[in-house]
Order: sequence, then structure tokens, then C-alpha cells
Amino acid sequence: MANPPENLDWLWRGTSEIFPNQPESDNPQENLTQLLAKIDRPLRVKLGIDPTGTEIHLGHSIPFRKLRAFQDAGHTAVVIIGDFTAQIGDPTGKSEVRKQLTAEQVRENAHDYLKQLRPILDFDTPGRLEIRYNSEWLGKLDLSDIIKLLSTMTVGQMLAKEGFAERYEKETPIYLHEFLYPLMQGYDSVAIDADVELGGTDQKFNIAVGRDLQRYFGKKPQFGLLLPIILGTDGVQKMSKSLNNYVGLREDALSMYSKLEKIPDAVIKDYFELLTNLSLQELPSNPRECQKLLATEIVSQYHSVEAAAEAQKAAIALVQGGGTTSTDAVPEYSLSGIEFPAKLFYILSATRLCSSSGEGRRQIQGGAVRLDGERISEVDLTFDSPQQLQGKVLQVGKKKFVRLV
Amino acid sequence: MANPPENLDWLWRGTSEIFPNQPESDNPQENLTQLLAKIDRPLRVKLGIDPTGTEIHLGHSIPFRKLRAFQDAGHTAVVIIGDFTAQIGDPTGKSEVRKQLTAEQVRENAHDYLKQLRPILDFDTPGRLEIRYNSEWLGKLDLSDIIKLLSTMTVGQMLAKEGFAERYEKETPIYLHEFLYPLMQGYDSVAIDADVELGGTDQKFNIAVGRDLQRYFGKKPQFGLLLPIILGTDGVQKMSKSLNNYVGLREDALSMYSKLEKIPDAVIKDYFELLTNLSLQELPSNPRECQKLLATEIVSQYHSVEAAAEAQKAAIALVQGGGTTSTDAVPEYSLSGIEFPAKLFYILSATRLCSSSGEGRRQIQGGAVRLDGERISEVDLTFDSPQQLQGKVLQVGKKKFVRLV
Repeated sequence: MANPPENLDWLWRGTSEIFPNQPESDNPQENLTQLLAKIDRPLRVKLGIDPTGTEIHLGHSIPFRKLRAFQDAGHTAVVIIGDFTAQIGDPTGKSEVRKQLTAEQVRENAHDYLKQLRPILDFDTPGRLEIRYNSEWLGKLDLSDIIKLLSTMTVGQMLAKEGFAERYEKETPIYLHEFLYPLMQGYDSVAIDADVELGGTDQKFNIAVGRDLQRYFGKKPQFGLLLPIILGTDGVQKMSKSLNNYVGLREDALSMYSKLEKIPDAVIKDYFELLTNLSLQELPSNPRECQKLLATEIVSQYHSVEAAAEAQKAAIALVQGGGTTSTDAVPEYSLSGIEFPAKLFYILSATRLCSSSGEGRRQIQGGAVRLDGERISEVDLTFDSPQQLQGKVLQVGKKKFVRLV
Repeated sequence: MANPPENLDWLWRGTSEIFPNQPESDNPQENLTQLLAKIDRPLRVKLGIDPTGTEIHLGHSIPFRKLRAFQDAGHTAVVIIGDFTAQIGDPTGKSEVRKQLTAEQVRENAHDYLKQLRPILDFDTPGRLEIRYNSEWLGKLDLSDIIKLLSTMTVGQMLAKEGFAERYEKETPIYLHEFLYPLMQGYDSVAIDADVELGGTDQKFNIAVGRDLQRYFGKKPQFGLLLPIILGTDGVQKMSKSLNNYVGLREDALSMYSKLEKIPDAVIKDYFELLTNLSLQELPSNPRECQKLLATEIVSQYHSVEAAAEAQKAAIALVQGGGTTSTDAVPEYSLSGIEFPAKLFYILSATRLCSSSGEGRRQIQGGAVRLDGERISEVDLTFDSPQQLQGKVLQVGKKKFVRLV
């Protein structure tokens, strides 16, 4: 293949674990390096998407970046859209999160998800990307197929799985259908003849189930390649939307930049390793320069080099309270929808910088609101006409901005 | 219906439990007596058959006898043939017993099973018997249906089931597909709209699962009617083929009679209650007479009153070693297939009174073999011509006979 074995930095960069991994073995079933060296066709590299949510953040992007590395080495990315389960939802009706989606909603979500992946994956080179919906094969299984799938595992094995073990211990109900999900994910590997499956370190069990099922169905078992779960912008907890310590892939350049230029030193090396292709040996020695480089590099990936430069300028101006900036990186909000005279806290809500007028008042009281860099402390500040605001940047905290136009 | 509530002796005779059972309630969903009194259509009374084995014994006959009582009260017996799972077998390949059967084998077994039920069930009155193969509905289930079925129960509930609990405790592997079987049996109740399901006391869990599933699918939950597991002819262990303490429904009249006339006093009342319709108040006071009555009554059910009388006569003659009898109840074996001169132990094997010539020798040595009531002790006894044997009864122990012809 395209990559001789001595040149596999792309494979190991940021990788937590590859399994099986017998470094001494020259059996390509036990050693992915050997497989990459010996095989005369592109490997099929699987990564699954859950189309119930659509907002992807940098944490989600990590396995997709590895998938891109496989594409660049000449292999085929097989993105599985888990439409089958999304259309079932949570049959117990107990989960708010796993609502039942229509086929239409699933397609829309998948489309939206894939759109966010455009900056990461190679969508264009022929043979490098396959997008598959798993209802294609899961929808065809009948009871006798499913009995066979279930018969490949014991209750003890399933209850040993992280998550299930704790719930069983704590007597939190585990519904029987939950045992099917790892088997369904595993069966996806059978159906698409995966050579490698990528996932977070929390996916080891499910990927290993895929290996077992491939063997059961007389196929060669896939390799698992596990990638770390990244910490959020707080440097403390796992990146997640609910903790609001995330950077979303479709945030505007300035918002993305502002979050990334403050990444704590303790995690910045992980961010470089997992979220950029920059050489880790050549990073600036000054921590502040490091943060700026990280922010510029990542914004460049999702927007453009120019947008990143603009965002950097705007961020400097805003954080320093340096008045109106001429940058395009600040999102705009049209004042035409607001009736004047208007209270500032109402405008904070209308622009969605705050979730409600109440929160707007609290943010003003808390000293978090600035207009063109100047702190506002008058809770009931009122503007009589849009002209008083036009062209100014309204800011809440250090990360949320709009330009009023 | 046909039976006013005051006349439900047939329902309670030999019944271990009916559930739910709120005797004070006049809600026909909680009180089967009320349902029987109020409903204006025949109830659908379900009983399942596993078509992997075909030799039915008196222990198996008990729920079928109750099913007949429902038929006689005007209700519909719905016999479910579990062909679906029989055709899958044990997908782990670990069970010798649950071999995979072809559709053809299942049909043959079912046919054979039903033939043995002819003396018990009413096959003829229109509307009293429905025979259904569960592949009819189970074969149509897809993965989303099965996810829904599984979602109705938790791992904890399933592991609380007798059998599973012990195996989990002892760390004997429980394969995941085993959890599906109670749900499949339960779904049978949904599919056929069962009002009542009959089963042994070991079926309580499965019948309760059926109730849950019927509720889940918006149907009225069935009643469970549980019947005792009968002890074998040894009066000690559960009747079973492997313990050889059973009476098979297609044993010849003499064999059946001989086993039943020795039923231990401790269990004879159960046998009368569960295997006959005789009034328990009017049984003979003499225990020996009781045994004879039981044997005659049951042989009459499966053969005829005349055959029972003949068997009684033959049994007396044989046990007393009273020489040739003229009865027809002794099965015949044609000597024409045997080459003479012939060793007696070979004849014992050829007639299948013994499983092999070796066993034949041992039985002669052990003193168990009689010819026309006379004990044979010469291990190598040889007969030169069929004329020496013609018309004589060859006997091993007290229960196995053939007439050589």
C-alpha cells in the first residue's frame, strides 16, 4: 500500500490503543502494521455515527481525524449512520434523550452531521468514503438471526461491561434490549466487512463484540483503534455540551478562537496532538504563543486561514476592551427586529447572548456585559433608537459577542 | 356459558394455582370464576407443545387433561406447537438435546405428538380445538419488534427466574438468547389472544411474562392455571423418561397396567386426582383394590375397557408365574426373523426385551428372565427350533413381556 511500515506515525499519533497488537508477530491478523504493509487493497475502516444529535464538537472530531488519516493513506472510510436504532428510540419510553425519530428526521440529522464533517473527511477522492445506513442490514434480521447473535454472548460477559456492571451493582434497571445494542454495532462490522473500527476508549467492549461476531460469521476479525476522550476547555472534565466546556464545529471563528486561546496548559499538548497535524516538537516555548497557535490552527481547519487571522485580531480588540473592531469574525445581529425604546436586558435576550431578559439583568448586575468593550453596570439602561447601537459590539463574558447592525 | 359458577369442580380438580385469583373480586380480570360466569364466548385456553421429543408420558398428560376439561365446558383448546425454536435448535451447539430440526422433522414430531393426545383431547367437536404453529407469528418478527419485546423486562427480573438465578449464582454460563425464550412463549399468548394458559407449576414465570406482554400490546392479560408435576412410578422422583419411572401413553396395555398396579400408596391419590375423573370419595378402601382400579381406569383411557380387563388378567397370570395365558394384551414377536439354533440371550436382544445380547446374559444371570413364568438360569440356553418357543411368553423382570409367535 501507500505506506511502507516505517512510516506509520499517522497511525499511532494520539492513538490510545490498537488491539490486537502483537508487535513481534508478523501475522497480519495480530499486528495492524503488518496488515498495512502486506495487504494489496484499501482497508475498510469503520466509524459509527449516532444520528440522534447533530451538534458535533472537537471531542467528537478526534476519531474522524484518524479516519481522515486512513483516507490519506489510501484506505476507505466507512461511515455508518445508526439510523436503525434512532428510528426505534427508547422503547421503554423512559429516556428523554432517545426519542423516536422518523426516517425523515434521521436523514436530516445525518445530512447535518455529515456537513459538519466536510472540513475533516475527504469526501471527494473516489473510493475513499462510503456512507452506509445500518437499517440496510439490521432491518433484514429476523428472530432466528437475532437468536444466533444473542447466543454468541453470555449474561456474565455482558454484565462485565463497564456501565452495565455498575448499574447491576446499584440495582438500576438494565432493560434486556440494551444487551442488543453492542451486538447490533458488532453486526455492522460483519455487514460492511470492517478491517478496522475506530472509536473512543469507551468503545473497546463494543468493538471487541464486533470481532467476535465477525469470527462467528466466518469473517476475519477487525482491529480496534481507540482514541482518547478529550478534556473540555476547562481542562478538568470530559468535553461535553451539557458541561458547556466544548467547542462546536460550527461555531463562528471568533467564538471558536476565544475559547481555544484560553486552553489550560495542562491539556494543550493533547489538543495539539489530537486536533492538529502540527509537529509536537516544534511548538512555541511561550505558553501564550502556544495557545494562539492552537486557536489559529483549529479555526483555520474549520473556517480558513484568513478567518483565523481575523478572529485573532477581533479577540485581541474585544478582550482588551479596545472599542469597535472592523473584523468580520463577529456575528451580526440586525436591530430591525427590535422595537425602540428598548431595555438593554431585552436586547441581550433578543440577540440570544442571554437566554432570557432575566438572565440579561443578572449578567448586567454581575458586570459581564460590555458594549464596544465598555462595561455596562446600569441594569435598566434603555436605548431610544437603533442609531445609538448600530455597528457596536455587544458582549457577554469573554466568549459571546454580536455586532449590532 | 355452559357452566354456572357453582359447578366448577372440573376447574379446581388437581389445580395447584390459578393466578390472578382474587376470590372476593367480581372483576372478571382478577377472578377466573367470574370470567367463566360472565363471558359470552368460549375462552381461548392455551397449552404449548415442544416438538423436539415425541414420547409423551402420564406426567405430560396432566395439563392436556385439564385442557380437555375446558373443552368439555365449551371452551376452545389452542395447542401451540413450538416449531420455531425447534427449527433453530441450540445455536451455541452446546446442547445435545436441542438439536436443530428441519421443518419436516418438526411436522412429523408434532403429528406424532398429537396422535398420542387423541385419547385425551376432543379433536372432533367443531370449535373445540385449534392447532397452531408459532412460526406463523414468530417468523414475522423483525429486529424492531424484538427490541420492543426485550424492552419489557429487565436483566434483574430475568435473573430472578428460577433456574437462571441458580445458574448465575454458580457462574454457569447463561447465553443471552435464553432470555428470549420466555418472551417468545409470552408472545404466543399475544398472537393467539389467550384467555387462559395452562402449564406445570414450573411455568409460572413464563405465563406471567405472557400476561405482561399482552398488557404491553394492549390486550387483556391471560389467567395462568398451574398443574402439579407428578411423581413417577417409584413414588419418589418426578416422572421422567430418563429416570425410567414413567408410563408412556403409547405403551401396550399390559405394560401400562403392570406399572400402574404397583403405584405406591403415598402417591396413588394424586394419580387418581390428576389422571382420572373418578370421584375421590368413592375409592376402594383396600389399597390393592385401589391400585387395580387405577391401573384399569388409566389403561381404559388409552386402550379400551376390554383391553384393560385383558391386561389385568394377563398381569395376574404372569406375576404369579401361571403359565401360558390366552390374552391379547401381550405384544407379539414373530420368530420368523431369528435363525435357529439360537441362544436365549440373543432372542432377548432380538425381541428388544434387552438392549443387547450382553444385557440379555446379565438379565439371565440376575434371574430376571422367565419363559411362560418359569425362571431361566442357564446363561447359554440354546433353542434348536422355533417350535420350542412358539406361543410362549418371554418375560424380563415384571414389566417386560412378549409372546413369541
